[in-house]
Amino acid sequence: MEVKDVGKNSRGGLVAVDMLERYKKFCSGGKKLRGGLIQLGFEVAGGEKRAVLGASTAIELIHAFLLMHDDIQDMDALRRGQPTIHKQYESKHEEMKFKKDFKLYGTSMGINMGDLGAYMGMEVILSSKIDESRKLEAAIYFSRLLQRVAFGQGLDVTYEQLPKITEEDVLEVHLQKTSVYTVGGPLKIGAILGGMSKKNIDAIEKYGEPIGIAFQLRDDELGLFSSEKELGKPIGSDIREGKNTILKIKAIEKAKGKDKAFLIKAYGDRKISQKSVDKVRDLTIKTGAYDYSKKLAKKLVTDGKKFIPQITKNSYFQDTLSSFADFMIERNS
Amino acid sequence: MEVKDVGKNSRGGLVAVDMLERYKKFCSGGKKLRGGLIQLGFEVAGGEKRAVLGASTAIELIHAFLLMHDDIQDMDALRRGQPTIHKQYESKHEEMKFKKDFKLYGTSMGINMGDLGAYMGMEVILSSKIDESRKLEAAIYFSRLLQRVAFGQGLDVTYEQLPKITEEDVLEVHLQKTSVYTVGGPLKIGAILGGMSKKNIDAIEKYGEPIGIAFQLRDDELGLFSSEKELGKPIGSDIREGKNTILKIKAIEKAKGKDKAFLIKAYGDRKISQKSVDKVRDLTIKTGAYDYSKKLAKKLVTDGKKFIPQITKNSYFQDTLSSFADFMIERNS
Repeated sequence: MEVKDVGKNSRGGLVAVDMLERYKKFCSGGKKLRGGLIQLGFEVAGGEKRAVLGASTAIELIHAFLLMHDDIQDMDALRRGQPTIHKQYESKHEEMKFKKDFKLYGTSMGINMGDLGAYMGMEVILSSKIDESRKLEAAIYFSRLLQRVAFGQGLDVTYEQLPKITEEDVLEVHLQKTSVYTVGGPLKIGAILGGMSKKNIDAIEKYGEPIGIAFQLRDDELGLFSSEKELGKPIGSDIREGKNTILKIKAIEKAKGKDKAFLIKAYGDRKISQKSVDKVRDLTIKTGAYDYSKKLAKKLVTDGKKFIPQITKNSYFQDTLSSFADFMIERNS
Repeated sequence: MEVKDVGKNSRGGLVAVDMLERYKKFCSGGKKLRGGLIQLGFEVAGGEKRAVLGASTAIELIHAFLLMHDDIQDMDALRRGQPTIHKQYESKHEEMKFKKDFKLYGTSMGINMGDLGAYMGMEVILSSKIDESRKLEAAIYFSRLLQRVAFGQGLDVTYEQLPKITEEDVLEVHLQKTSVYTVGGPLKIGAILGGMSKKNIDAIEKYGEPIGIAFQLRDDELGLFSSEKELGKPIGSDIREGKNTILKIKAIEKAKGKDKAFLIKAYGDRKISQKSVDKVRDLTIKTGAYDYSKKLAKKLVTDGKKFIPQITKNSYFQDTLSSFADFMIERNS
């Protein structure tokens, strides 16, 4: 997409340039985990890392789009240490002394920025210099994956509305919304692009599914216990949002009396104090919810690793896949 | 996308089925203009209409996604004679006695439904049974087109914030947001899939650009003067939203004294009375704004038609393209 396609007069061009620059800046942050996994999948399949750079960029662009739409739904204000996109446009509204509803403007631009990135990503993957049949197969798989993510996101916001959520519900959302496109998805895209056999690719999915869920469990642990600096967003965001995590479900399940009542009230309290956040943390440890999450994540990683021998016989890549799986639950950011 | 990929337990599956059913129902409405144009472009290029059905479905799925995201931004309540998707989910929130903010839930599900359709559309076009190279070229072009639409939508909501909008601004939004993916875009996608030469395809863009703008001018005329039944949405929606149309700009420009003040106040008045809507209509005619719009649309159609001989030498298709262009500004729905 060229900016010159957009504005015939400078005013229109400026809006487009502004959108592109914010998108670029947003993408400069983040772990680049998914892009790296596409490269890994491609290399395991026997490809040359450089050839797949386009596809890696594509998934990072699309990850950014998903975060932008997610942040609107979670009413998040910070992401990657910066204001979320819809918040940025709320601020722009104020700076420019725009006239209409600033909140709707922020939401609207957040939606449009996401839609922009959704198709920037598709353009980039479809344009990469790789065998056409493989590219088509990868793009079809990727499109199906992103539909699952949309269902997963629908599940997530719907479950948030329900009074009673089970552990299975939480794990299902983790699977649909996060796991499939965080670990197994990118690895499989890389593997398809690299021409891996169907049998080995199936093993990648089996490897990625539990490890992707473990990734999210670790994310939720970090979300509750990290500092704002490490996290790039305010402490206690997940509590304020009432986000359905294993830590929440288990802590509430195991807590008794006043503690239980406190936790139920704390989750979803948009104005929770720092002191109460600390108390939620303490109770999460005291009830054993934190240990439960750690153990579950460890088990999921072990489950996933069993499939490594079916993915590749190359011991270097076997080690890489094994270390990667461990890193998913040991990482501190 | 199969629903079975989604829910491992029935609760998750139900949310996914609900989303798919609403999507399907939404797509059963509408004019199917864009799908028809893909077929026309394909036939003009010498292809067999049936082969391109997949791509036609794809653009209708994607059109639906754009409307869903648009309706959130315009706060529209009705579309195709039914509640808009975000409104449907607001109602569901009430029916199910969900606990959190109903408006945010509606917006969230509207975003997720759109994201779902964005990739259903990509999957369908990439899976259609057509030559791989052509399919890739068409999908890349389509992805670029949809980025332009996202910029156009960004322009639209940004211009709505500005105190002074010119005729050029309005036409630019019409071009970026609507024209490119309503007439020239689908025709070109069909033409690429059908293997048309680059020179003839360039002529399609030149044909489609002005005619697509004329389509939007007619849409705005119908938006102001049709009945709710013909329109599928409430009378005066465009006035209530303060939508930037040529009719609005011109009527305000030409009106004098009290009438001018009345029009400026009426556009954007969310609680405007039926009587005031009637007065806006009268003034739009009295000031000559309606005639101006009709004449401009007529000129644009004439401009576009000049390129027909460069698209095809076949007189049957030349006549079809010519009649289609006329129909764009003569249609009553």
